[in-house]
Amino acid sequence: MKNTRNIKVCISYDGSNYHGFQRQKDKVTIQGEIEKAVLRLIGENTVINGCSRTDAGVHAKQYYFNAHIESKIPCIGFVKGMNSLLPNDICVNSCEDADNDFHARFNTVFKEYIYILNTAEIRNPFNSKYSHHYPYKTDVKLMNEAAKLLIGNHDFGAFCRSDGKKDGKSTVRTIFDFDVFEEDNKVTFRVSADGFLYNMVRILVGTLIYVNESKITFADIENLINSKDRTMAGVTVPAQGLYLNKVKYCN
Amino acid sequence: MKNTRNIKVCISYDGSNYHGFQRQKDKVTIQGEIEKAVLRLIGENTVINGCSRTDAGVHAKQYYFNAHIESKIPCIGFVKGMNSLLPNDICVNSCEDADNDFHARFNTVFKEYIYILNTAEIRNPFNSKYSHHYPYKTDVKLMNEAAKLLIGNHDFGAFCRSDGKKDGKSTVRTIFDFDVFEEDNKVTFRVSADGFLYNMVRILVGTLIYVNESKITFADIENLINSKDRTMAGVTVPAQGLYLNKVKYCN
Repeated sequence: MKNTRNIKVCISYDGSNYHGFQRQKDKVTIQGEIEKAVLRLIGENTVINGCSRTDAGVHAKQYYFNAHIESKIPCIGFVKGMNSLLPNDICVNSCEDADNDFHARFNTVFKEYIYILNTAEIRNPFNSKYSHHYPYKTDVKLMNEAAKLLIGNHDFGAFCRSDGKKDGKSTVRTIFDFDVFEEDNKVTFRVSADGFLYNMVRILVGTLIYVNESKITFADIENLINSKDRTMAGVTVPAQGLYLNKVKYCN
Repeated sequence: MKNTRNIKVCISYDGSNYHGFQRQKDKVTIQGEIEKAVLRLIGENTVINGCSRTDAGVHAKQYYFNAHIESKIPCIGFVKGMNSLLPNDICVNSCEDADNDFHARFNTVFKEYIYILNTAEIRNPFNSKYSHHYPYKTDVKLMNEAAKLLIGNHDFGAFCRSDGKKDGKSTVRTIFDFDVFEEDNKVTFRVSADGFLYNMVRILVGTLIYVNESKITFADIENLINSKDRTMAGVTVPAQGLYLNKVKYCN
């Protein structure tokens, strides 16, 4: 094996115009754009390891990837060079050298997502790609109380898209915190965990919206968790209100 | 002529994904989307008259069009129906019946545009379609003073894209007010006039940026106006920082 560095890179992106993070043939993705820029910057065909496979339209305020490279480019040069080559809706915030075995996905210990509802009666065209328009009455206190019932170590099988469950893979996760709060016409759901299942945040938010609409009671939530049955939980809310907000590693 | 109404409609839109306001064959435009939605809502093939031909990528916080229609749809029904049919980045804010001879473009007496610079060192991916990234030192006081020299009734031929000048058409306009101000890492240019020439706001802002960069002095500005020579003014700044902000009519 050649003598390589392992760089840990923090980025943020507006996911509106991308088919998600993960590279796909003939589709414009975040990973695809980054790998193209890395090739142009340092002349190396590199596969980057992203911390999460965000879906089409999902945004990231803080996102990490790592990549094994041979180039001796200084970290600051990598940041500036990448930003000059990347589309303006993807931005490199920082770069540092990490241990050789650091992996941006496998080594995460904490992830926080936020989901934003725009509850104004008339939608705002400038928010349409950055929030979900929900022009109805919201009981934020009620949703916030229901959110607290989801905190802890549970089998979240009911909150995972059916085709996202893999044989033998655990659907147990620990939600560290879950808050729902309001400012002006904006309701924010903020949830952190040791990891999330496929579509989990969007189904959790959809479930709290069902609580808001009296379709699910507090008592139902425990049964819902125990059922591990996706059909008992709320709808999967649209992608455009979702942001990966924070990612943490041990070190 | 059939018995028609003339509706005056206020909209706002995020221009990021459109080839400008004006209908173009095989291109997605604001006018095209609106006329398509009107046809679906009331079954009439209607040409709408927009108040301004905003370029590709330019946004509008307040924009008016008028349209002659036969339908008796109530105004509130028009607003709600259009919003259910239009893409989420175009929004109808209000609709009212106007005099039959009201024309959204010819009857304007006041238009205000704003232009936004993002002066943060590292660009923000969420701002990239809504501001122009200019990570350099800005002397806002200086630009604001220079802006004041442009207020008044002048021939703004130097501030009009060359191919936007039409034989026999006057390039005289009155700028009512022109302010440059700063908040955090955001510099805003706000200019109002009785009307604007093709690319005028973007060239005015480019000229003030030349003032900031000491490429144009206060003394040059009077000569620049007198020259009516486009090549003497500043660059045309990119479209994505520009917003039509306010439009006023006599009544």
